[in-house]
This record gives sequence, structure tokens and C-alpha cells, in this order.
Amino acid sequence: MFTTPAMQEAVSDESWLQAMLDAEAALARAEAQAGLIPPSAAVAIAAACTADRFDLDEIGGAGVAAGNPVVPLVEALRAAVAGEASNYVHHGATSQDILDTATMLIVRSALDLLDEDLHGVAAACAELADQHRATVMSGRTLLQQAVPITFGLKAAGWLTATLEARTRLAELRAARLAVQLGGAAGTLAAMGPAGLDVVRSFAEELGLAEPVLPWHTARARIAEIAAALAIAAGVMGKIALDVSLLMQTEVGEAFEPGAPGRGRSSAMPQKRNPVGAVAVAACARRAQGLAGVLLGTIVQEHERAAGAWQAEWESLSSLLEVTAGAVFRVREMLEGLEIDAERMRENLDTSGGFAMAERVVVALAEHMGQAAARARVQEICARALEQRLPLRDALLLDIAVRGHFSTAQVDALLDPANYLGATSALIDRALAAYRSRS
Amino acid sequence: MFTTPAMQEAVSDESWLQAMLDAEAALARAEAQAGLIPPSAAVAIAAACTADRFDLDEIGGAGVAAGNPVVPLVEALRAAVAGEASNYVHHGATSQDILDTATMLIVRSALDLLDEDLHGVAAACAELADQHRATVMSGRTLLQQAVPITFGLKAAGWLTATLEARTRLAELRAARLAVQLGGAAGTLAAMGPAGLDVVRSFAEELGLAEPVLPWHTARARIAEIAAALAIAAGVMGKIALDVSLLMQTEVGEAFEPGAPGRGRSSAMPQKRNPVGAVAVAACARRAQGLAGVLLGTIVQEHERAAGAWQAEWESLSSLLEVTAGAVFRVREMLEGLEIDAERMRENLDTSGGFAMAERVVVALAEHMGQAAARARVQEICARALEQRLPLRDALLLDIAVRGHFSTAQVDALLDPANYLGATSALIDRALAAYRSRS
Amino acid sequence: MFTTPAMQEAVSDESWLQAMLDAEAALARAEAQAGLIPPSAAVAIAAACTADRFDLDEIGGAGVAAGNPVVPLVEALRAAVAGEASNYVHHGATSQDILDTATMLIVRSALDLLDEDLHGVAAACAELADQHRATVMSGRTLLQQAVPITFGLKAAGWLTATLEARTRLAELRAARLAVQLGGAAGTLAAMGPAGLDVVRSFAEELGLAEPVLPWHTARARIAEIAAALAIAAGVMGKIALDVSLLMQTEVGEAFEPGAPGRGRSSAMPQKRNPVGAVAVAACARRAQGLAGVLLGTIVQEHERAAGAWQAEWESLSSLLEVTAGAVFRVREMLEGLEIDAERMRENLDTSGGFAMAERVVVALAEHMGQAAARARVQEICARALEQRLPLRDALLLDIAVRGHFSTAQVDALLDPANYLGATSALIDRALAAYRSRS
Amino acid sequence: MFTTPAMQEAVSDESWLQAMLDAEAALARAEAQAGLIPPSAAVAIAAACTADRFDLDEIGGAGVAAGNPVVPLVEALRAAVAGEASNYVHHGATSQDILDTATMLIVRSALDLLDEDLHGVAAACAELADQHRATVMSGRTLLQQAVPITFGLKAAGWLTATLEARTRLAELRAARLAVQLGGAAGTLAAMGPAGLDVVRSFAEELGLAEPVLPWHTARARIAEIAAALAIAAGVMGKIALDVSLLMQTEVGEAFEPGAPGRGRSSAMPQKRNPVGAVAVAACARRAQGLAGVLLGTIVQEHERAAGAWQAEWESLSSLLEVTAGAVFRVREMLEGLEIDAERMRENLDTSGGFAMAERVVVALAEHMGQAAARARVQEICARALEQRLPLRDALLLDIAVRGHFSTAQVDALLDPANYLGATSALIDRALAAYRSRS
Repeated sequence: MFTTPAMQEAVSDESWLQAMLDAEAALARAEAQAGLIPPSAAVAIAAACTADRFDLDEIGGAGVAAGNPVVPLVEALRAAVAGEASNYVHHGATSQDILDTATMLIVRSALDLLDEDLHGVAAACAELADQHRATVMSGRTLLQQAVPITFGLKAAGWLTATLEARTRLAELRAARLAVQLGGAAGTLAAMGPAGLDVVRSFAEELGLAEPVLPWHTARARIAEIAAALAIAAGVMGKIALDVSLLMQTEVGEAFEPGAPGRGRSSAMPQKRNPVGAVAVAACARRAQGLAGVLLGTIVQEHERAAGAWQAEWESLSSLLEVTAGAVFRVREMLEGLEIDAERMRENLDTSGGFAMAERVVVALAEHMGQAAARARVQEICARALEQRLPLRDALLLDIAVRGHFSTAQVDALLDPANYLGATSALIDRALAAYRSRS
Repeated sequence: MFTTPAMQEAVSDESWLQAMLDAEAALARAEAQAGLIPPSAAVAIAAACTADRFDLDEIGGAGVAAGNPVVPLVEALRAAVAGEASNYVHHGATSQDILDTATMLIVRSALDLLDEDLHGVAAACAELADQHRATVMSGRTLLQQAVPITFGLKAAGWLTATLEARTRLAELRAARLAVQLGGAAGTLAAMGPAGLDVVRSFAEELGLAEPVLPWHTARARIAEIAAALAIAAGVMGKIALDVSLLMQTEVGEAFEPGAPGRGRSSAMPQKRNPVGAVAVAACARRAQGLAGVLLGTIVQEHERAAGAWQAEWESLSSLLEVTAGAVFRVREMLEGLEIDAERMRENLDTSGGFAMAERVVVALAEHMGQAAARARVQEICARALEQRLPLRDALLLDIAVRGHFSTAQVDALLDPANYLGATSALIDRALAAYRSRS
Repeated sequence: MFTTPAMQEAVSDESWLQAMLDAEAALARAEAQAGLIPPSAAVAIAAACTADRFDLDEIGGAGVAAGNPVVPLVEALRAAVAGEASNYVHHGATSQDILDTATMLIVRSALDLLDEDLHGVAAACAELADQHRATVMSGRTLLQQAVPITFGLKAAGWLTATLEARTRLAELRAARLAVQLGGAAGTLAAMGPAGLDVVRSFAEELGLAEPVLPWHTARARIAEIAAALAIAAGVMGKIALDVSLLMQTEVGEAFEPGAPGRGRSSAMPQKRNPVGAVAVAACARRAQGLAGVLLGTIVQEHERAAGAWQAEWESLSSLLEVTAGAVFRVREMLEGLEIDAERMRENLDTSGGFAMAERVVVALAEHMGQAAARARVQEICARALEQRLPLRDALLLDIAVRGHFSTAQVDALLDPANYLGATSALIDRALAAYRSRS
Repeated sequence: MFTTPAMQEAVSDESWLQAMLDAEAALARAEAQAGLIPPSAAVAIAAACTADRFDLDEIGGAGVAAGNPVVPLVEALRAAVAGEASNYVHHGATSQDILDTATMLIVRSALDLLDEDLHGVAAACAELADQHRATVMSGRTLLQQAVPITFGLKAAGWLTATLEARTRLAELRAARLAVQLGGAAGTLAAMGPAGLDVVRSFAEELGLAEPVLPWHTARARIAEIAAALAIAAGVMGKIALDVSLLMQTEVGEAFEPGAPGRGRSSAMPQKRNPVGAVAVAACARRAQGLAGVLLGTIVQEHERAAGAWQAEWESLSSLLEVTAGAVFRVREMLEGLEIDAERMRENLDTSGGFAMAERVVVALAEHMGQAAARARVQEICARALEQRLPLRDALLLDIAVRGHFSTAQVDALLDPANYLGATSALIDRALAAYRSRS
């Protein structure tokens, strides 16, 4: 339910049907080019290859009985093509040639949709990274406040991860989407000597790569696509998780954009739920399970699988849907993300300044050595926690600290904005990587 | 694509909508019984709770925005209920109360469908077990011929596994389908002192169990159902795998029922593909992945999850669909299974009698002790394999064997029908267990 | 790494070796009882069946080559048993009989270990539920504050989920741990007419159930155990997730017990990390993946599997280890859990009282009807959020509210302790269920 | 149990310890280069960084309590480094910096081991492809005989799939193994302005890539590695599945190399089990489950995860082990694979020549058109199957066939060696791709 309308359409039964017809049309044209079938037959076949001429339910139903939808589709296509040309429909091909090639066409258009939204996510991250490069907040490790970061750095992390996921999908789009054409058992025997010429033309017709061999039971490309999709969904899941944690009532540092009808509770009028983040989390979980199926289906028998191949189709469609749902929602979430910079700063402060403890160690070490400084600060922290004092008070009460630092110096030490290290430079690196990709 | 029409309908959007409405109606009635809302309101609400009054697409679309479909459904239901009564719609409940209760209703009707087909599978297995109790064939381990069994014993194994899966699902149907009712955070606070009475009546109204506590984030029952479904699908996968292995051209011992349009290849006119078995295998693989998602979603936050709950709905529906597809197809396959008993016997023979080697060890051991007998037979086997002799010939050439056994005795030793051990008694045990369940 | 020493030992190579030897010893005794082998042979065999007589590495190494460890073990056991009796070692059994029976023995002792720690978890939950039945805190849904609950109710939820997981494991321990004995292909042929008697005695010897049929390739019991373990680990994961969320710096309501060396950061001296909760989360994730393998391995070929069976052994051992790690750590965590009741109350208050909004709706509805009350409170909340007012102030500024309630009444409405519904009764139900189980 | 000794060592606790120490040593050197710590300190630290100085069990035990092993390791390392230099141990780093960098070192050496065995698999495949380019056998789809192929083409398919898996792992080795260095929350703050210089030198010291940003919670690289490993294991699983199917008693076309102690049954003296193939199948299944865990752990909280990161370590080690086990065994299997070319041809023949039906369609179509030819041959096949005639006899009895072809022509049409299409050219393509990679 959490996909996008565009992706829902891209993996719809209609789209699958058209993709199979596109494969049949391209096959006929490629065979005509290779002199295997009359050019007029190719023209007639191609003309018949539009999805609206076919009865989807009928083909679907018969496809279940036949074990795949190509068997009834070829019959229906032969019927739709008038006369002599009908003899040349699906010439020398096997069902899997058409279905696998259609899969690649479906994946290509789906990846294009995803790429657009991933670009949107990256752009939104870049904007946030730049704009909030100095918006100080607490870094959090194991859900505990650690040292300060800026929200821009967090967004830069999201950006870098998004770019990685997008790059991998783009690599696969460019290099791994290949036609499938091998005939009954991968020898192209029914095409006679023209077989390999047909494969080349078939690939050119469709703008897909020409594989070294038919890949009827060499399924790594499907598994690679599945893994890359699950990774993209997982990266979105990470961003959404961060947002939902920041939206917690007790944290309140960032918020999904609100809108009428979004995130209302049916029981609690005041609530503003992270409904987008939650949907992304759901999508990421489902993506993982679906990709797991497609990692398992690599193990296929001989020249065509008895079950593993047939488990791919719907798993891949669902995987594309949930990935799209995750990416779209993160884009929407980040494009309208509301940041409460004041609250970010307050949360750092109300945690008693402990996030700055590391920095005090660094400063104190210059006077008393690392080991002693660390031990001393640990002691001061323990005392402060026990007595429920802010770290500042505990430091000012400590004789060693007072021996080296004035109150003003202690305050400077405790200012998170003074302890951001390479934050700004790291943001620049992430932005540079983003710009060089765009 | 490989599910059944009945299951497709049982988990359709319409069915989900009606199940949610059934939950709302039952809630109103339970609240009226507890004196929490006016009886007339309950009547009015219940009257409005029929799915055809609502616009599925509208509720679905708004549900995506709201994070779950109950939010817009409650609004639409309030609008559908005239006047004062509308105030009592969804009184004191939270979205998850309705959706989880609806899930249980959906699962219940789905389990009933599955139970029927599982019964059909068991009945077909029982029939085959009984009928073929003496149909000798090769037992096969690690895909190698081992000692003889009968096809009836194989079917008894399928039967026992099917009964186990069915029993577990029946247990869950009886004990683990419970209403969900807790209100906003599980305290039933908005219902005042009547809360627990409402829960009891709600459960009675729907014929579901009353849980100890609301289980908003205690999801073991969902995971248990998912695991039992995946196990049922896996058992079907095992049966289908056996059938597809027996259907191999080189084995040819059993065949799915053929029918026009079933199992034809688009390239090879003579082929008769195990399309049913293949569909089952595909369903079993998908079931495993979907159940994996539902084992992972147990880990949920506080009083309502931020993602894991929302990943359950479609995973569970899909899991029910693929399990139904697997069970139905195995039923169909077994009800029409064609057995080639002659070929079973031939395959045992053409393997050169080696399947009987163990028996010769047993017989020879009475004369020369276990260790010596085993060593001797191993030697004879090695020689026979090397010289491409049937075991019979090699045995008759062996001086030790000849010292103890006549040719007729050797032939009796090599007759698989004489070496079936407890086969018939085991079949009886399986049938008795089946009958005691029916 | 996050398991317990006891479980590590229970699934160690030594324990597996001893379990296989226990199976061989029991087999010999059962066969002696059935008159199949001489009683003296059974005595001699049983006497040799102690793990310390065998070279684990040698058997392990040879087992890899042979495809399973029983092949070399039987050879070594034959060598260890003096004279004639050695002929009766492993009589009529197949490797899988021994390995599967050993698996059941391993699982039994592992389940006993788990049961003890699960009981500890339940006892700690019960203690917390009772002790904190009135410790008011915020219920949280989708990581947002919702209406108030008590910490006791949260602990009661953990308790109920833990009891469910424990009950299921206990059911499996009682009903599904069965001996495996079928010989080469499940017919018991090598045992002659005594086969079924041997099975019965074998089961009695080991205190395991006698299955209807050999279950060489009917693996539901393994999958059921795996699922129940993953569910138990998942329930622990849920508890740990709640604790780690409560331990967040900004929440600070509950804490794992601290101890020297626990949860310190190597970089940040003040940090107190939820190291126990984190380890549990890691274990729960791994449990899910391992259980996924064991749901997939149900699909096995004919009378012995070519791969799926062999994938079970280490997956099951690892699954037992991570489940034990999760359960033990939750027990430890809960037995020493530190609760900050004051902070729980503060967090409710600092959220501005919005958690009580639902209650105001309920109260106002008595005066102006549900719909109007809900709309009004939604409006007041929106205004309060916009103007950053506590709900109390916004209510007191509202003319409709003032028309029906005095300031004192508003304060009473906003007191979370007055809005706990069935909390106490629910805790009692959970405790009663716990006590009836103990 | 099915891994290799080399991989077992590569992922052993000792190797992990040394990898962490290598990271600490490189960090010290990099910090000395950047002027952050005294060069003499770096020398002293590096000198102490050898695993044999440390007590593995102690660090392991304390690491469990601390939540990761780096905490106690740093303490032990500080103790091992004499005097002042100890202050500079682990300077400015966080535990995860060391553990993630160590992970990359472990993965690097593991990938090198895998690459060698994958090369061996590819070389063996290439040899088989070339040598058996004309060894005719049946292509098999859905476990049914289809049209003829050669065993060389099957091996070429294995080769191409192996090369794809190897290429992907090599890409990851080259591009995605990066140091991790960010300090407490990824800002490098404790290193002052030298932070990014340290990162660069750290990467150079270790020969790993320098990432754009610290990737503490950007885990795509781990997931990508996991997916590529599971895919490699899956490709091995496909090869092993083919071999175990070819080894079936009833098929008997190819055999794993036999050796004393390999593949013997404890019950059946004559059996020769596909123990290698079975072990590979087990490894591939486990790889899928383990990779599933690592696809799920992408979703990590804020600047360091509370559970997901901690689930990575052992899952990744196990995944490397099972992948190595699969690759090694396939190499071994293929290097000694025994081919029974005669049996391959016999199996084609005993299937009655139906595998050539497609070819008859092609030939007949030249005389009577596609549609008529297909229908006619389908009819002839049906008749032949019904009357249990070989296709040859049925063709010679058919009046249409006789009208166009002589007996000799029919025999030529039915000769599988005449119907191999592009087989040889495809093998050449696969070999060319292999050679260009080597």
C-alpha cells in the first residue's frame, strides 16, 4: 500500500504484458533483419504488439495453468496477427526468453522512476546539509547523547548513503540489463546459423545489453538488482529511523511535514505521528524479505528452473514497489522537513553538558597527560551524575580543573560549537561528491 | 499469481474493509451491552457496517496518508451513521484495535479455506498410501537410489507431514486468534470502568479469544501464524519437489495430471512440464521470505510500533495467498497423480540391484559376522561397479556368496519386495493417525 | 559472542559428539531388548559411548569428507568396542537416525537452559509489574507520547509475551522432540520384523517421543523449534528495544544495571551505554536470519535431502546460542533494572499535558457530545502547540472548557493518575496468568 | 563445518584481534605523520600491536560486557605500551573506527582467498567447456529433457556465472573497502584540525580507500559485500545442484571425484553420495540467510547503532566461511569431475528422440508452414507417447513426414549433434570472456 502510483503502474499487469509484447516485436524485427523471417511478417507482428488488443485476465488465467504467461500470450498474438505472418511469431524463442527480457524492460523503467526520486532525496539532503552545516545538535550513539555534531553533518551522511545506493542502481541499469535469447535450451538451435545475429539485433532494438551467454539459469543479475534495491530501501529506512527518533516527544528536534489527514491518531487529537517515516520503515523491512527470496532463487536447475525462476516475478515487482514507496516518502519527508534548531541546542544543554566531556579530556590532557586527564574527567562525570549536577558545575568545583582553566575557559570548552572538528569540511566533501554526480 | 480465487478474495481489499467494519460493529454492540453507548447507537452503527457503502479507493488513498486505513474509515463510518449515533462510532478504541481484530478475522476465514484444501491433500495422500502400499520403488537418499520402499510409504510420509502442518494451523485457529482492544495505549481508559466488560463482549460477538492483555506490541501470535503457514507451504514444497523429481524424463515414475493447456512448452511440442509442482515450489520459496518478515516484526516499540506493525499487513496477505496456492496445487496434483508402477520397478532393476546390497550384508552377516559381511559386500559392489556388472552377476561370481547361497536364494535376496521391513505397518500407523484426525 | 557459557557448552562439538554416542548406546540397548543383538553387545557398546574416548578433530575432519560426522564416528566406535560386539554397533541404522536423534537431545538440554532463563525473565517482569503498578509514565505510540500508562503495565506486557514464548517452547519440548529411526530409507528393513519394537524402546531409552513415521525428510519439527526460538528471541528484542528507548538521554526513565566494565565508551567517559539491550537486539536479528534458513530447509528431497538437511545443524546451534544470549541478557537487565519514576512523571508533564487530551475529550463529550468535544479539543491542542502553551493553560483560556469545568476540575482531568482505565486489573490478569504457569 | 581451513583462520578470533591491532598501529602512525602524536609513541604503539601479546579469552570476555571488544583491547594495549606512549593509544578514535576498519582488513584477506578458489572454479569450468564442447547431452528444462546441448555449453554457463560473481567481488575489493575513522560521533573533533589528514594517512597506511565521510551508520558497503558473497555462494549452489542432478542413479552423466572416505553411506555399501555437492548446497542456503541479516542491518540509528551493527560481526564471518566452503568444494568437484559421455548420449536416445521434436517442426515448416508443422508434430508426439513409440518410428509412420523426408533424412533430423545451433560459438564467447579476465 505504501508504493507510488507511478511504480504501481510500472509493474502493473498491463506493463508486464506490454513489455512481453515489446520483446516479441523486437524479436520479430531482429529476425527480419537477420533474414530469418520476412520483413513484412515483422511489420505485421510488431503492429499487433500493443497491450490493449489482449485480454489480460484471460492470458493471466491461462498463464497460471501453463506455468507462465508467455504460452497463452504467444497463442493470442498468433491469433491477432493475420495470415502467414502469424507463423513467425515467437520464432525460435522460448517463454523464458520473452519473460526475462520483459523483466529487464520493467526493471529499466522502474529504475528510471527510482532514480528520479533518489535524486530528489539527494537534492533535499544536500540542501539540508548546506543550510544546517552549523546547526549544532547532539551526536547520538547507541541512543545516548555523545559529542556534538551539526544537523548538516547528519544530512551529509544521509546524502552520501543515498548517493551510494543511487550509484549502484545506475551501474546496474547501465551494465546488467541484458536481453535474454537462447531458445528452448540456450543453443539458439531453432534459429539456425543466424542465432547470434538475432541476439545482437534484438539487444539493439531494445537498447539492452547483449549477454555473453543466455542466462536462463544464471540469475546473478536479478539477485544483484534485488540486493541493490534492498540496500536503497535500507538507506531510506535509516533516514526515516533517524527522523522518527528526532520526532519523539522527548526529543522534538525535527518533524515530517504535516498536512491535513497526515499522521492524525484516531484516538488522540494532539498527536502528530511520523506516518511517513513509519511507512518507510515498513517498506524497508519488506524489501529485505523480498530481496532474500531473490538471493535464494539463484540456485536453479540445469537449463530452466523448476520453481526458483517462477518465484522471481512477483517478488521483484513487490520489491520495486516497496523500494519506490520508501524513496518517495523520504523525498517528501526531507523536502518539507521542519528543523527545531533551538530544541537541538536545548537538548544538548539539558543533558548537562556531558556531551562535552571528551573535549575536556583533550584540553586537560595538554596539562596532565592523557591517562590522568581521562581518569580525572571520568571521576568528575561520575560525581556530577551522582549528585545530579551539570558537568559545568562539577568542573568548576574540581580543583585540578580550576588549576588550569578560568570559568570563561571552562565555558568555552563546554561550547559545542567549538567542538565540531572536521564537520564543515566533511559536509563540503559530501556536497562535492553530490555535485560531481549531478 | 499462483494463489486460489477463494483466497484472493479472502484477503482482498474488500474483505479487509468488511473485516474492519465487522470489528467496528462488534465494538459498538459490545459497548451497548456494557452500557457505555446507547443500544440504538449500536444498532445504527452496525447497520452501516457493510463494505459496499464505502469507497474503497478513497479510504485506501487516505489511509496511506494517515498511516493506516482505520483513520479515514472511522471518518467515513461516522458520516454514514446518521445523527447522534455517529458520536459513538469507534468509541474508546484506537486504529490498531480495529485493524488487528480485522486481521484475526481475515486469518480465520483464510485458515478455514486452507484447512479444507489441506484436508484434501491429506485425503489424497491417504488414498495413495493405501492403494500403493505394495508398489515397490527405490528409496532415494541424496538423490541416489538407496534401499527399496513402496510408493505408499512415500505417500504416508507426505500424509504425516501434511497432518502435522494442518494440526498446527488448527491449534492456532482455536487458541491464538484473539480480539485486540486496548484503546490509545492499552489501558482502555477512554471506556472508564466498563473497559474489560467491553473486551469480553467484543470477543464473544466475534467468536475470537479474549487475550490476557492487549497485544498491540506483543506480536508472537502473528509470527506463530506466519511460521505455521510457511511450514505448511514448505511441506507442500517437499511433496512437489518429490513429484517433480519423479517426473524427470529419466525417472518417469509419477506424473501430475495433464490437461489441455497445462504444462505445454512454447518451444517444445512433446514436453509435459511439472507446472503444478513448479508453482508450488515458487509459492514455498515466497512463503519463506514473507514469513521471515513476520518473524522480524516481533520487535516493536513501546505501545505501538513505528514501522514493524505496518509491515505486517501485506506480508500476511501475500503469505496467505502463496500458502493457499501451494496447498491447492498439491491437492490437485495428488488427486490426479498418475503412477507408473512398472517404471518404478524397472528403475530399481536397471540400477543393477545395488539397492539390495544392504540386504545381502544382513543375510551374509548371519554366516560370517557383520564386519566381514559388510567388507565383503563392499568389495563385491566395487568390483561390480568397476566391471559394469549387475550386482546379481557379481554376487553369483563371488566364492563366499556361493558358499552360503544358491542362485535361487540370491534371487530372493535381491527381490526388493522381500526387503520392505516395517513399510506396511508404518503406512498403517500413518493412516490411523489420519483417520483419528478426520 | 553474545551467548551464555552454558548454552555454548550445550551446543559444543563435545556435546554433539556425546549426544550422538547417547543415541548409539540407546540404539544398542533397544536392539538388545528386542532380541536383535546380544545383550552383552549392548553393554559393551554403551560402555564405549563416552565422548572423551574419541578424537573430536579427527571425527570432525573425516565427517566433512564423508558428508556427515556419523560415518567416521561409527567407524571409531566400532574400533573402540572390543571384539564381536563391534559388529552390532549402529545396527540397521543410518547416519541421519543418529544425527537427528542427537539433535533432539541437544535441543532438549538447550530448551531446559532457556526455560530457566525465561522463567527468570518472567519472574523479573512479574516483580516489576507488581511493584510499579502505579508508577505513572507516558504510553508511547509511533514513538510519540500518547495517553498515560504505568510502568507496571509495560512490564505486564513483557511478562505476557515472555510467557507465551515460554509456553510454546515448553509445548514443543513436551510434544515434538522425537527419536529418529528408519534405517537406510525409512523402512527399518535391516532390523527385520523387530523394527518397530526397536523404535519404541529407543524412544523410551532416551525419553523422547516415538514418531508416527521416520521424519528424515519431514522437517516441520525442526522448523517449529526454529520459529519458536526466533519468536522468543524477538520477544526479548522487544523488551530490550523498550529499555534502550527508555534509556535515551532525553528520556532517562529506566536503566540497565551498571557495573564496572559495562557500557563504557572508549571515547566518551560519561556515557553509560545500553550494552545489554544492544546485545539482545543483535541476537534477535541474527535469530530471525537463522530461523529463516530453517524455515527454508523443510523442502527436502525424497528419503534424505541433498543439502537442506546439512544446512540445519550449524544454523540450529547458532540459533540456540543467540536465543540464549538474548534471554539471559534480558533477565540480567530486568533483574537489575533501575527505574526513575520521577523522570517518568516529569516527561509526562514536560510534554505539556497533551497526553491527557483524550481524557478531556471524554469529559467534555458529556456536556457537548462526542463530535463537538473532539473538534473543540483538537482546536485547543492546535492553538496550544502553535503558541507553545501547555495544554492546561490553553484549556483554561478556552471559553467552552471554562463553561463546564473549574480550574480544579481541569487539574483533576489532567492528572494522569486519574486516567489509567483498566491498568491495574490488566496487571492482575497478567500476574494471575504468570502464577498459574509457575 | 563446511568451510576451508584457510578461511577459518582468516576469520578466526586471532585474525580479528590482529586486524584490530593493525588498525590501532596504523592509526598511531597516521597520527604521528600528521603531527598529532610523537613519532616515538607511534613506534612504541606499533611495536606492541601483535596479537600474541594479548589474552584473547580475556579480551573476548570483557568485550561481551563492554558491548564490543575494542574497549578492553584498548585498555590492554595501553598496558602493553610502556610509559608516555600509552597516552597516545587509540587517540581520538572510537571503538567502531577500529572494529569497522578491522572488518575491512578481514574482508580483504578473505576476498583474496575466495578469489583464488573462484579462479580455480573458472579455470576448471573453462577446461570442461573447451574439452566437452561437442559432448552431446540433453538440455533439461523444468527437470524435463528439452533439446540437445553439449556438456561444454553447460560448463560455459557455469563459467560465465562464476566470472560474474568473481568480477563483482573484485570490484568491491577494489572500490568499497574503506577505512573507518570519525571519532566519537563522526566529526573527528578529538583530533583537532589534523583530523582529515589523519584519515588520509590512515587509509594509505592500510591500503584501504578513504571514504567521503565516516560510515558508522552508512552500512551499504557491508550489505553490498554480503550480497556479493551470497550471490557467489548461490552460483556455486547452482553448479552443485546441476552436478547432484547429473549424479542421480537414473541419470548417471557426471560424478564428483571419488576418494576413500568420501560419500560413503553408513548403511549402504554401494552408494556414492554427492557429498561435495550436498555441502555446497548447504553452504549456499546458509549464505542466503546470513546475507539476509546483513541486508537488514543497514537500518541503523543516528551516529552509532544500538543492535544492528553488533549483529554484523559474526554474521559476516560465518558468511565468509560458508562462501569459502562452497567455492572450494565446487573447485574440487569440477577439477576432478568425471563425465560419462556415453551415458549422456544414451539418455538422449532412451528418451525416445522427443528432444528433437522441435527440430522436426523447423524442418517440416519449410514445406508446410509453421503452424501446420507445429500442429502436425504435436499430433505425432502425442501419438508416439500414447503408443510408447520412439519419435523416429512415429515419424516414419506419418504420411506427411514421409511425403517430404526419406528415412535417412529423418535420421539426420533426429541426430542431436546436428541440432546444436550456436553452441560452439557461445562456448567461444564464454572462453574469450574468461581469457580476457585472467
